[in-house]
Amino acid sequence: MICSMLNIKYPIIQAGMAGGPTTPELVAEVSEAGALGTLGAGYMTPQQIETALRDIQQLTQSSIAVNLFLPQTYDIHKDAILGMQQYLNTYRVKLGITEVNNIPDMENLFEEQLATVIEAGVKIVSFTFEAPTKRLIEELHASEIIVIATATSVEEAIQLEANGVDLIVAQGAEAGGHRGTFLNVENESMIGTMALVPQMVDAVSCPVVAAGGIMDGRGMAAALALGAKAVQLGTAFLTVKESGAPNIHKQTILSSRDTDTKITKVFSGKSARGFKNTMMIDLENRISGNPPPYPLQHILTSDIRKEAAKQGNKELMSMWAGQASGLAKVGSAGDLVENLVGQCEDALQRISWI
Amino acid sequence: MICSMLNIKYPIIQAGMAGGPTTPELVAEVSEAGALGTLGAGYMTPQQIETALRDIQQLTQSSIAVNLFLPQTYDIHKDAILGMQQYLNTYRVKLGITEVNNIPDMENLFEEQLATVIEAGVKIVSFTFEAPTKRLIEELHASEIIVIATATSVEEAIQLEANGVDLIVAQGAEAGGHRGTFLNVENESMIGTMALVPQMVDAVSCPVVAAGGIMDGRGMAAALALGAKAVQLGTAFLTVKESGAPNIHKQTILSSRDTDTKITKVFSGKSARGFKNTMMIDLENRISGNPPPYPLQHILTSDIRKEAAKQGNKELMSMWAGQASGLAKVGSAGDLVENLVGQCEDALQRISWI
Repeated sequence: MICSMLNIKYPIIQAGMAGGPTTPELVAEVSEAGALGTLGAGYMTPQQIETALRDIQQLTQSSIAVNLFLPQTYDIHKDAILGMQQYLNTYRVKLGITEVNNIPDMENLFEEQLATVIEAGVKIVSFTFEAPTKRLIEELHASEIIVIATATSVEEAIQLEANGVDLIVAQGAEAGGHRGTFLNVENESMIGTMALVPQMVDAVSCPVVAAGGIMDGRGMAAALALGAKAVQLGTAFLTVKESGAPNIHKQTILSSRDTDTKITKVFSGKSARGFKNTMMIDLENRISGNPPPYPLQHILTSDIRKEAAKQGNKELMSMWAGQASGLAKVGSAGDLVENLVGQCEDALQRISWI
Repeated sequence: MICSMLNIKYPIIQAGMAGGPTTPELVAEVSEAGALGTLGAGYMTPQQIETALRDIQQLTQSSIAVNLFLPQTYDIHKDAILGMQQYLNTYRVKLGITEVNNIPDMENLFEEQLATVIEAGVKIVSFTFEAPTKRLIEELHASEIIVIATATSVEEAIQLEANGVDLIVAQGAEAGGHRGTFLNVENESMIGTMALVPQMVDAVSCPVVAAGGIMDGRGMAAALALGAKAVQLGTAFLTVKESGAPNIHKQTILSSRDTDTKITKVFSGKSARGFKNTMMIDLENRISGNPPPYPLQHILTSDIRKEAAKQGNKELMSMWAGQASGLAKVGSAGDLVENLVGQCEDALQRISWI
């Protein structure tokens, strides 16, 4: 089954959250606890990936995964970018950082990132934002690497399976962070986990991993009942001790309510779910239509979001979180894995109406 | 537990879908099968309710419920209504029905509807669209009537419990038909069932019923694992033999995909999930801001939707459905209840990773 396929004890995957939360300590602790730790390497340089993987491998011998973002094509509209920079300067001034008025250099590191991951001997790679091509999957299979990809609709899952993906993450509308949608992106259906998982399970023959709104063992039990073979959790791992998420982000999650998040494109150019704050609402009101496309807008807003996180200013940073963030707990990543398994068994035991 | 409270065998509620689907035969068959049948009486006159309840009571002695819409306050903007009528006349012409250019008479039948239900000896009443007041709930309790109400957020559930509701339906974003939202209606958070149920269960002490995206025993098992004490299904009951839904609606559900539905206000003035079609998209493009409020817009579009259903024209009617409609099956309502229970047990048995 999926546990022997991924060489793990429990069918739990820690989502590959890019941008800092997935420290080597988090990834290693998750895997040591019997789940699958994932390095969120989407924004990392090959050198950073190499270092992180070396650190992880010093902490654990267990199975780990790396998540990468597949490269995307996009148009560069200079005026829109410069206009955005100009507006973003109002935030930069507030935070006391240098104003920026240029078009950022864009470099695509995907090939080098992937080469680094393969070189380091990682045996599980997950992708988001596009369908990995047949050719890419064949190359990875030739290196005995298991390929995981994300789908937000049945149609996307069918395409991923046709391309040869080994395992599909069904990302429900509840999920925090970036949406993995790659078909009909402008008309996204936002299908809830409860509806998405059984339809996807019926449509593909490879194992489906449920993601979105799962925070504890009740959600894990529910996902398995729907036919998922494993669960993937992001938000739940953000508040654990080993997570590299900024403290203000952790605190906001721990005190959050079910209605606090929203899907927005303004931070990165791509739809993602995070806590409503001044920057989100302000930019949404200002931008008619779409902001510059991902990854451009991500780069444009990065310095602001990083500085705001450093200053503990939660109004000018992106704080990704799913719709069940209010169920987050503190503790170690190992505690979380253990609790998930224990509560899952309890939840299943508790069901009886006869 | 909930089954003895509602005097049913299985923790399954057939949603009180207004507008025709809940025929006396459907309600009676569901209750005869051991679940809770619900007459969707929101749009019925007191006389129609009386007749329907008499018919149901001739078919079954089992427990049934009636669903009513709580009255709402709204403003009447004559110009907006007349402008809407004028535009809707383009549809009326297409369908060959009489053009309408007036402001409809509005009468609020709620008090008479409720009196009829109490008079008929119904012991379970469910409400949507508002929080029933403490006073109303006390009156119903005095008649030994159990009160069910719908919440789409934890905050709404807390208010319902404070008012004295006996049982709360947690309506996830996946659900078909009208949203039960009554707080922050203009800024609805659309929380998925997977995220909503456990947070609501933790926040209130009365039993929570899960709704939204549940179509088969896998969904039922999942909902119970999340902590719900029962499930409520609407779309799944639309395609059964006893359902009064138009054939074209049934056929559309049976051939639907996960991405076919959308939330819209254009049919009734209130957010509801249904299949995308010409009338939905066309009106959404035409209306800037909101259509006339519910129930005005519902009344304005009613003749068109009824005639289109009669003509089998699926482009000019409202076809409510949830995001898992593609899992619908044909058969009797009794078969559906039996399958739900059997599949639920199977789904729970099948879970094992050790």
